[in-house]
Amino acid sequence: MPFNALNFSAGPGALPASVLAQTREAIVELPDTGLSVLGMSHRSDWFRALLDEADCNIRDLLGLPDRYEVVFLQGGSSLLFATIPMNFATPQHAAPEYVTSGYWSARATAEAARVGPQRVAWDGSADGYRSLPALQTLDVDSDAAYLHFVSNETVEGLQFAESACFPADVPLIVDMSSDFLSKPIVTDRFSIVYAHAQKNLGPAGVSIAVIDRSMLERIPCGLPAILDFRTHVTHRSNYNTPPVFAIYVLTLVTRWLRDDIGGLAAMERINKAKAQRIYSTLDDLGDLVHVHAKTPWRSQMNVAFTLGSPQLDRTFIEVARERGFVGLDGHRSLGGLRASLYNAVTPEAVDALCEALTEFCRKHA
Amino acid sequence: MPFNALNFSAGPGALPASVLAQTREAIVELPDTGLSVLGMSHRSDWFRALLDEADCNIRDLLGLPDRYEVVFLQGGSSLLFATIPMNFATPQHAAPEYVTSGYWSARATAEAARVGPQRVAWDGSADGYRSLPALQTLDVDSDAAYLHFVSNETVEGLQFAESACFPADVPLIVDMSSDFLSKPIVTDRFSIVYAHAQKNLGPAGVSIAVIDRSMLERIPCGLPAILDFRTHVTHRSNYNTPPVFAIYVLTLVTRWLRDDIGGLAAMERINKAKAQRIYSTLDDLGDLVHVHAKTPWRSQMNVAFTLGSPQLDRTFIEVARERGFVGLDGHRSLGGLRASLYNAVTPEAVDALCEALTEFCRKHA
Repeated sequence: MPFNALNFSAGPGALPASVLAQTREAIVELPDTGLSVLGMSHRSDWFRALLDEADCNIRDLLGLPDRYEVVFLQGGSSLLFATIPMNFATPQHAAPEYVTSGYWSARATAEAARVGPQRVAWDGSADGYRSLPALQTLDVDSDAAYLHFVSNETVEGLQFAESACFPADVPLIVDMSSDFLSKPIVTDRFSIVYAHAQKNLGPAGVSIAVIDRSMLERIPCGLPAILDFRTHVTHRSNYNTPPVFAIYVLTLVTRWLRDDIGGLAAMERINKAKAQRIYSTLDDLGDLVHVHAKTPWRSQMNVAFTLGSPQLDRTFIEVARERGFVGLDGHRSLGGLRASLYNAVTPEAVDALCEALTEFCRKHA
Repeated sequence: MPFNALNFSAGPGALPASVLAQTREAIVELPDTGLSVLGMSHRSDWFRALLDEADCNIRDLLGLPDRYEVVFLQGGSSLLFATIPMNFATPQHAAPEYVTSGYWSARATAEAARVGPQRVAWDGSADGYRSLPALQTLDVDSDAAYLHFVSNETVEGLQFAESACFPADVPLIVDMSSDFLSKPIVTDRFSIVYAHAQKNLGPAGVSIAVIDRSMLERIPCGLPAILDFRTHVTHRSNYNTPPVFAIYVLTLVTRWLRDDIGGLAAMERINKAKAQRIYSTLDDLGDLVHVHAKTPWRSQMNVAFTLGSPQLDRTFIEVARERGFVGLDGHRSLGGLRASLYNAVTPEAVDALCEALTEFCRKHA
């Protein structure tokens, strides 16, 4: 198995081999420019065309209605945790509501509380974040500024199913950092979808927000320009110097999704098969293995589990590392093991991991 | 002249050829890791060691006293224009004072005004930003939260000289985005120095702030965590996912400055010689050329000038482009021509530009 193939990191993680090969050449010379991609001006025609293509590819992949804007931002989801309430938790509405279903949505909730009043619509901490709520049954104020939730909890390995129902009478803002562009979504149910790149889209350093234009009317005056979403919409993601390189790699990934994979429905089939392969391997190992998420909410992106003892988990990480597997440590808040199955993780790599797990458990059971 | 050699862009711009060569290989495999630099986790030992090395190299290059912290941030100077007053323009002090000496310091001043009261200590707009003030003679409130200025105005090509005197009784905050690490600085005169990478340090997507630790005590409680400088100091620039790749390239550039160039004094000698070469060429061309900055404040980093008519400037840009020169357009706010002479622009490239300019002016005069 070649370099980079066995990277199961929760992010930054694996990228498609063909994207890495093109990027390698672009470091010295971008085709037809005579320049390194790292030396390209953000005011060049090349970069304007790149931004336009990234926007267009994301619209095409998602089938995005015209009323949405796509912007590329810096600062990761952690900055968006602050700027979303700064922009959209306006006093004309009731406090925004937050679904706290894991490590990352808890961070989003805590940051919103620093900006102003917010309400916790659901809190899954009592059972250690092992399940997700039925969103449409939550008691959400229909006048709330918005309802915020995280579609896939990267740390605990929980994910809302495609069949999930959403409340219809309040704007939905969803952090899709770890499953954006991993499957089709019914975009027009959401007012804002956001994600950072370093799971399924590219290297760390760039985020994407997809925004229903009507939400922009709610933004209060007087925010610092860089923290006001209207700035980035008006300047078409080129207000100040954007992370040119990260946007370049992200654009190559969108081309790969469209041309090599065949779109998000095809990507979803591949991702589902990978997830089924590993969960069935883990289930076959019976009591030797404990998956963190309860079955209905198992994530197709992040499989958080343990072999039953911290020492056995550690031994497996070490044995696996010798065979080239990388990134299998659980998040520091949860411990255990975690296999992240992002778009660029191949079925062959998942097969290899499943074989290694089965072999290890037979030996150490 | 090889690819990338004639990139005079104001940034993102030229990077050292040896840095590009190492980066190219790291895209496929970082030495001794088996992984692409784009797939490296920000929680890996490799990245922690990289951050430590970047910190150490910057400290060594600047001869930084222990009381300073070095943090790596996202969002560019435009985000710092907002976060600096949010963190340091505290009500215990008089309003911060801003020197408005060009396009970028005017942007910093405008952003500070969105955050709270500020005072303009000096405004150079009346003469079209062609000169800089003697900072120590300004009427600055000694109780001001800080005095903010920009050390090198990238658009207009103005730069404070090494011999500039600074007021002693107020914290100085300086945006060195376009001359940081281009020459030695007497760091301990400044409370905060900040810069984005895409001039002298690396690709767009990462900024550096050097902060006197005593300033951290002024930060008010309740800021969003990501906008609070203490967060990044406490988490040693690894609070949320940092732009791993941009920090990697920046670290290679600091190695190049130390090992290949021989430190900042050597870098300054090279940069001074490049600037002298182009200014003396322009001066020799007499009335054919007009340099924007008045002589005492001419920048060693950005040479803003015109050949006397927009049409002649445009013709030169086109003739130069055919010979491989890139990035010579003036900023959209000023027009004309601009040659940026950042660290990675070689003396040979400057010689070639000077020859092209002289030849062009002889032909078109």
